[in-house]
Amino acid sequence: MTDPQSAVEYASQHEDQALQDLKSLLRIPSISTLPENKADMQKTAEWLSERLQGLGFERVQIMPTKGHPVVYAEHLKAGADKPTVLVYGHYDVQPADPLELWESEPFEPTVRGDDLFARGASDMKGQLVAHLEAVEAMVNTTGLPLNVKYMLEGEEEVGSPSLPDFIRANADLLACDICLNTDSSIHAADVPAITYALRGIAYFEIRLTGPSHDLHSGRFGGAVVNPANVLAKLIAGMHDEHGRVTLPGFYDKVRPLREEERQELAKLPQPDDWWKAQTGVEALGGEDGYTATERATARPTLDVNGLLSGFTGEGSKTVLPAKSMGKISMRLVPDQTPDEVEASLRQYMAQRVPAGIKWEILDLTSGPPGIVERDSVAVRAASLAFEKVWGKAPLFMREGGSVPVVGYVHDLLGVDSLMLGFGLPDDNLHAPNEKFHLPNYYRGIRTFIYFTYEMANG
Amino acid sequence: MTDPQSAVEYASQHEDQALQDLKSLLRIPSISTLPENKADMQKTAEWLSERLQGLGFERVQIMPTKGHPVVYAEHLKAGADKPTVLVYGHYDVQPADPLELWESEPFEPTVRGDDLFARGASDMKGQLVAHLEAVEAMVNTTGLPLNVKYMLEGEEEVGSPSLPDFIRANADLLACDICLNTDSSIHAADVPAITYALRGIAYFEIRLTGPSHDLHSGRFGGAVVNPANVLAKLIAGMHDEHGRVTLPGFYDKVRPLREEERQELAKLPQPDDWWKAQTGVEALGGEDGYTATERATARPTLDVNGLLSGFTGEGSKTVLPAKSMGKISMRLVPDQTPDEVEASLRQYMAQRVPAGIKWEILDLTSGPPGIVERDSVAVRAASLAFEKVWGKAPLFMREGGSVPVVGYVHDLLGVDSLMLGFGLPDDNLHAPNEKFHLPNYYRGIRTFIYFTYEMANG
Repeated sequence: MTDPQSAVEYASQHEDQALQDLKSLLRIPSISTLPENKADMQKTAEWLSERLQGLGFERVQIMPTKGHPVVYAEHLKAGADKPTVLVYGHYDVQPADPLELWESEPFEPTVRGDDLFARGASDMKGQLVAHLEAVEAMVNTTGLPLNVKYMLEGEEEVGSPSLPDFIRANADLLACDICLNTDSSIHAADVPAITYALRGIAYFEIRLTGPSHDLHSGRFGGAVVNPANVLAKLIAGMHDEHGRVTLPGFYDKVRPLREEERQELAKLPQPDDWWKAQTGVEALGGEDGYTATERATARPTLDVNGLLSGFTGEGSKTVLPAKSMGKISMRLVPDQTPDEVEASLRQYMAQRVPAGIKWEILDLTSGPPGIVERDSVAVRAASLAFEKVWGKAPLFMREGGSVPVVGYVHDLLGVDSLMLGFGLPDDNLHAPNEKFHLPNYYRGIRTFIYFTYEMANG
Repeated sequence: MTDPQSAVEYASQHEDQALQDLKSLLRIPSISTLPENKADMQKTAEWLSERLQGLGFERVQIMPTKGHPVVYAEHLKAGADKPTVLVYGHYDVQPADPLELWESEPFEPTVRGDDLFARGASDMKGQLVAHLEAVEAMVNTTGLPLNVKYMLEGEEEVGSPSLPDFIRANADLLACDICLNTDSSIHAADVPAITYALRGIAYFEIRLTGPSHDLHSGRFGGAVVNPANVLAKLIAGMHDEHGRVTLPGFYDKVRPLREEERQELAKLPQPDDWWKAQTGVEALGGEDGYTATERATARPTLDVNGLLSGFTGEGSKTVLPAKSMGKISMRLVPDQTPDEVEASLRQYMAQRVPAGIKWEILDLTSGPPGIVERDSVAVRAASLAFEKVWGKAPLFMREGGSVPVVGYVHDLLGVDSLMLGFGLPDDNLHAPNEKFHLPNYYRGIRTFIYFTYEMANG
């Protein structure tokens, strides 16, 4: 039985280098949604390839897709009797706008206090590099005690459009016993937790067209159906007075929360005040009959992500707009599916859009919800690793966000995903001043090390 | 009794020059709302001053205000026994965006068929120059048969913010018997009409703030009140299922349409199909129990003019927005007032905005509705002028748009305004491909001439 101690000591002695490593990666603005950052995407993939080659990985490849490439690498020297872990991560980040709200440059990583601020720090270059540092510590001491493959994609922030085809085409290459998905978080800096379920997503753009061109609101207002007013009415009708989504059949497949599970979620130290502090609101809202934690992680939702119509500059323009647009996403829980939810939305629109308005719906991105067994080897290994590093048993939590790859890996490779990452809920993901809590970074490296040895030892 | 015939003949012989004159003014992009066009505003004011000086006007002045200047000029040689007409017009125009929808450059006036295309062609440089050409014809033949003053502002398209102060400070200078407001239109090219009532306007921006910063919609969606969803709900609640505005007390001051007036409005050749053709919609909407003409000209409305929240670029960003913004304007009819309507909107918001959302309302622009006596000298003179030029008696119509100056002139100078202009409902006001129908331009010049002599002869 291989002992993790020397690797853990190595990691503790190399924290400065680990920080420099992470900063180096964060300086590359790998924004997958913007065409002008295409070269940065390639540069990031090359950074990762070189790092993996330096760690002795084999078959290191930047594999093209229809969009941004996938970085693949493997280290299979532990032998066929040891498990193979497929590490999933993504190297792309969200756009940084609105830039004026950042306190330091988004792509010039800056340490303030215990935090490292940069776009992608927590989502998820910090998690990704933490695992690389853990691998380095093991490679440079005992050697890796199990087999590791990396699959690092560049399109997670745009909905992983190329990943299903990639996994399908490379299923043999990616064969593994378990997927370690490092795109995850814990509840709080001193509260380790294992995420056993994720919400799915179904994200749509609704486009309404009324008149054939923008009209003068004085000349025509009152006689013509206004597509901006109609959009408001459609969106308003998507919730009832109890905060429940009204799309037909929306809750039919929702797995009810068992009482036992609600008790476990209630152990998480996140009462209403915590949610208020995280979000800066004076009062919370949502579906009647559920706690904020349940609403945000274990219940399905429908949120507007964007609205645009007519004149939005400063001052007044008396326009009756020809068009309106709403971006709307739903977070799904087992056993909802994106396809069924889309059908439900289309049925709602067909029933409600008034005469005088044409509509279309674009399916922008989707991914199924996921849930993993809590008594599996991987969950037990993660639990033990947390106990070693944090000195306490982890809580079990559900994640409100969506990681479509969990669904793809399950469907196409036939394996479960363990979510293991060290982000915090107040890391400002997708927002200005994204950060990563550095103590979590260093503990994360050690946790990955313990997890790997526990997995290897079964 | 002075005969208009020689002036009318002069005008007919100078139509080419009149077209070149108008084109020259349309080439100056006098967009009042854009700071980068400030110099163009001054250039336009100078163009007008020079033209007026050339016609023998006195006290021609570009008078400063807190915003864009007012051009003033007077021609008082007809004598104290003749009436004084204050001609109101505005020399500013709307922005031209979206530029890509214009078939020719907005500030390079282009004749296609019977129409002259340019931003400001119909709203309202065409009306303004038509009156200048009429004055030229009279000055160069019989001389002006009555006294004329011009008050030409540069802020109508931004709500005339400086005009009330200007009129108040210059009430003696502006003293007159009637205001001729040339910012108007007729029903159709062969259907002369006199506009005896205008709708007012109250235009607001509603700003909602939820969380202190944009949130990840997966992490927080469901627990936090989304300001974009709330905006939709608030807007949706502003109408009931009969298309009536629900703001408290909104209809209290609305003067009901008399049966006689409805019969007169019904004579206008604008059945539903006409409104559909103008706007390019397959079906109309609006308040139950009224015709489209009544809805658009004689009944109050509430329309969204702009919506903005969250992510509005291409693709998907999983953001739960911190803010949402809606521009909302109401068209008012006698005897509603902008102040009462604002109070009503604030009461609605105070009752409906849920906990977790902060709100504010900006009052962007407002103007009272107006209605003039149909048996006055001015209305009779206009009616006779139309008969001479068009060969038929005009219809009487109400105008759906808002001309705040009518209210100011009434309140501050104590005179009524006659609306007399020659725009058409399909002139694409405030929209791409704005145009002016050239036959109306030339007939308009002659109508102004006849009107002036009829007024002079009482």
